[in-house]
Amino acid sequence: MAKAKKQPRPKAETPKGFRDYFGEEVTQRTHMLGQIAQVYHHYGFDPLESAAVETVEALGKFLPDVDRPNAGVFAWQEADENDPAGKPGDWMALRYDLTAPLARVYAQHRNDLPNPYRRYAMGPVWRNEKPGPGRYRQFYQCDADTVGTASMAADAEICMMLSDTLETVGIPRGDYLVRVNNRKVLNGVLEAMGLAEADPKRDDVLRTIDKFDKVGETGVRALLGEGRLDASGAYIDGVGLAPEQAEPVLAFLTSKGDTMAETMTNLRAAVGESAVGQEGITELEQIGALLAAAGYGPDQVLIDPSIVRGLGYYTGPVFEAELTFEILDEKGRKRQFGSVAGGGRYDGLVKRFTGQDVPAVGVSIGVDRLLAALRQKGRLAATPVGPVVVTVMDRDRMADYQSMVAELRAAGIRAEVYLGNPKNFGNQLKYADKRHSPVAVIEGGDEKDRGVVQIKDLILGAKIAESATLEEWKERPSQFEVPRSELVAKVADILASQAGDAADSQDL
Amino acid sequence: MAKAKKQPRPKAETPKGFRDYFGEEVTQRTHMLGQIAQVYHHYGFDPLESAAVETVEALGKFLPDVDRPNAGVFAWQEADENDPAGKPGDWMALRYDLTAPLARVYAQHRNDLPNPYRRYAMGPVWRNEKPGPGRYRQFYQCDADTVGTASMAADAEICMMLSDTLETVGIPRGDYLVRVNNRKVLNGVLEAMGLAEADPKRDDVLRTIDKFDKVGETGVRALLGEGRLDASGAYIDGVGLAPEQAEPVLAFLTSKGDTMAETMTNLRAAVGESAVGQEGITELEQIGALLAAAGYGPDQVLIDPSIVRGLGYYTGPVFEAELTFEILDEKGRKRQFGSVAGGGRYDGLVKRFTGQDVPAVGVSIGVDRLLAALRQKGRLAATPVGPVVVTVMDRDRMADYQSMVAELRAAGIRAEVYLGNPKNFGNQLKYADKRHSPVAVIEGGDEKDRGVVQIKDLILGAKIAESATLEEWKERPSQFEVPRSELVAKVADILASQAGDAADSQDL
Repeated sequence: MAKAKKQPRPKAETPKGFRDYFGEEVTQRTHMLGQIAQVYHHYGFDPLESAAVETVEALGKFLPDVDRPNAGVFAWQEADENDPAGKPGDWMALRYDLTAPLARVYAQHRNDLPNPYRRYAMGPVWRNEKPGPGRYRQFYQCDADTVGTASMAADAEICMMLSDTLETVGIPRGDYLVRVNNRKVLNGVLEAMGLAEADPKRDDVLRTIDKFDKVGETGVRALLGEGRLDASGAYIDGVGLAPEQAEPVLAFLTSKGDTMAETMTNLRAAVGESAVGQEGITELEQIGALLAAAGYGPDQVLIDPSIVRGLGYYTGPVFEAELTFEILDEKGRKRQFGSVAGGGRYDGLVKRFTGQDVPAVGVSIGVDRLLAALRQKGRLAATPVGPVVVTVMDRDRMADYQSMVAELRAAGIRAEVYLGNPKNFGNQLKYADKRHSPVAVIEGGDEKDRGVVQIKDLILGAKIAESATLEEWKERPSQFEVPRSELVAKVADILASQAGDAADSQDL
Repeated sequence: MAKAKKQPRPKAETPKGFRDYFGEEVTQRTHMLGQIAQVYHHYGFDPLESAAVETVEALGKFLPDVDRPNAGVFAWQEADENDPAGKPGDWMALRYDLTAPLARVYAQHRNDLPNPYRRYAMGPVWRNEKPGPGRYRQFYQCDADTVGTASMAADAEICMMLSDTLETVGIPRGDYLVRVNNRKVLNGVLEAMGLAEADPKRDDVLRTIDKFDKVGETGVRALLGEGRLDASGAYIDGVGLAPEQAEPVLAFLTSKGDTMAETMTNLRAAVGESAVGQEGITELEQIGALLAAAGYGPDQVLIDPSIVRGLGYYTGPVFEAELTFEILDEKGRKRQFGSVAGGGRYDGLVKRFTGQDVPAVGVSIGVDRLLAALRQKGRLAATPVGPVVVTVMDRDRMADYQSMVAELRAAGIRAEVYLGNPKNFGNQLKYADKRHSPVAVIEGGDEKDRGVVQIKDLILGAKIAESATLEEWKERPSQFEVPRSELVAKVADILASQAGDAADSQDL
């Protein structure tokens, strides 16, 4: 076990690269995870929750992001419990995604699980990387996978489910697009170029394709050939292919036509006589037909050969969900929000354990990015609603105040008694303000004697203080005196009218 | 970073001491966490979610369970990112509870947080201990704490909330009891015995008190004096106190009277003139009065000086929630289910960071134990309900089957198309069985031509196969042919009648 450094006082700091989430941030994520689970469940997927910890051996190295090949895991070596001297045992690590644990679980329980096995999983994953702005070392993923079927119906289903999920959490049609491509088509292109499977130039070509988004058709053409000057003026060496050998890649990257049929014709030409390439195109056609039959249009899920991210990792169809609206980045520049989910078909994961190929297809949603998108679009409630605060005017009558709170809670109203030092009443109202309390309840000795309570509408009070004219002030008082017996009814009344006002202002 | 051993095939095994949770196990826990969060939220507590990782320094060693002093954490040393040679950096660890991270967060953000700060947190914690039956190295906790107030109203509130929570998740009154004691009273007892704060005999006395449950009054009396023979015949040395010096402890342990007033009188006698002891009793009285005023009876929350667990860790009132019904253990013996939650008042946690005492009180619910209890009592749905399975009779008409599924889902019905190899129809029905599917839908070429579908009630079918007479069989067929256009309506019909049957059989 580790020994802490002896220091008089530890620093109170969130560890570098990690985050603390407060209040609404937690509630909103929990709510979204619930919505996503509901869609997944509806599609017949069953939940699976494995532990955060796996053996390093079982995890392997299957990180899908090719642009972060050095991304590591948090790992430690166990003490061997059979050895009293504490000889080191297995290396353990925190999971870096939810797919590697699925592969382990499936290999372990495959005889007991339904076949095919549809499962979903949600939870944090950990990456031991250098933290950066907006890049954390712990973040949530939300995966769904179908293991044990090669049917394209499984791939089509994942795309439909992804589309449904995005719409369910509040991204309307038109603000997102699920794009579908196929690794096999790319393999066919490489075959058509005469590059054998072991040819080292394949990797160079893949890396060049990855730059298509940035450098465009002309750039890729140059990079596949002699090379080019980049924006900074540096000369980038090319792959060194002859122009005609590079042709299939360019035909592939620019194959998107006005209709799916046209795109498919272009792709068939690009892969030429490659059997795997033709098979990949047939798969895309099958997915397209299933999507159309189920009523999913190209404004939801689109066959698009220009998406290339993830092509290196997956073995068949590849999906990526992008949000298509623009946001402002940290520097105030407009940019597209970009990818919030990705997935595809993969074969190798379970084979590592069992030696047998098991076809599988899945998708992973980046929950934190999706939440950030909804927040940016103003589609999450901005101001949280705090509890009703019963203030304490007389410290000896705490039981009275607690009774009020109990009555309010029994009526389904979130409420609490002020638990700090009651001496300074201003502090109590400051506290209520910090909690975003909608209502404060006040019962001093005088009120007690007269059998009444004061009820303060804090939302209205703040509004009046900000902008009301004297007439409005008189017309809509923000503080009411009611008989003690009408406490709950009056508070409920005020909360209802506040909810109505909030709905009105949202309609504007 | 760790290097995995090079091995041709990793073992597919859940790491020792960890668990995989499937299907309903996950759903039921998620549901319970939601119920608990609802109660906590209702009481005015706000969620907080910190990362799983803290520095070892910040975590400190504050494990509440005195009987597991060697319980460790999972820890590793970071690489120092400023040093290209990868010099080791800080020690990091997985949190072992939710209180230590709260202390760090509160110390870090205390100027921005409301004061008092009511927060709740739910999530897994990790303990690097030897795993045993039913003892895992990752498990869920569900905490609520109020930081920054010394008011006994906070303690009383936690007890009420704990009682409400247990009733909300399905433990009825009478099946649980929240017991309250106070560390200060025990300190008073030690003072009354003439044991100063630094006296090493204090620890011996505490350890002896911990055995009261097992050895009873006579046993404790012997152990405080000369010692005694235990059940195995071994002689256990005593603390060596004179009989009259041991008297306050025994008075304390046996102080429970028929009424709270009687108990308090006994306690006041036990602590004699100890100021801290008298203060502790006054605190218990305050809690008792607040509970009574809010309508919580001694069948829900009880002042009980005989509970001693946790007294070593906490600094004031201590709570423990026990389930009072009996269950059968692994060996079929009856025993009480025991503790599912514990908490109390503590002062030292935040002081470690800031140097200042910050009064705090909290509770932690063991979610997995609570789920196990509900399962034992048969209060969680035993058989999960799977999706409606649309079988595949003709592989080329997958789009037709997917349309059926889409229609069913659109009507709010959990449904899926069979995605395995459709050749063997028996396998499809076996699959539906494994998924606990309520209904299977069948449309072969003949049905397609006639515009109908076959709908099989799998629950009724299983029942009939098991027990029906020929008359019942004829009267309630389990397979129906309906026009394709009535598919959704008929499936909905069958699901409704199954739900009705299930409710009826639960009433028996």
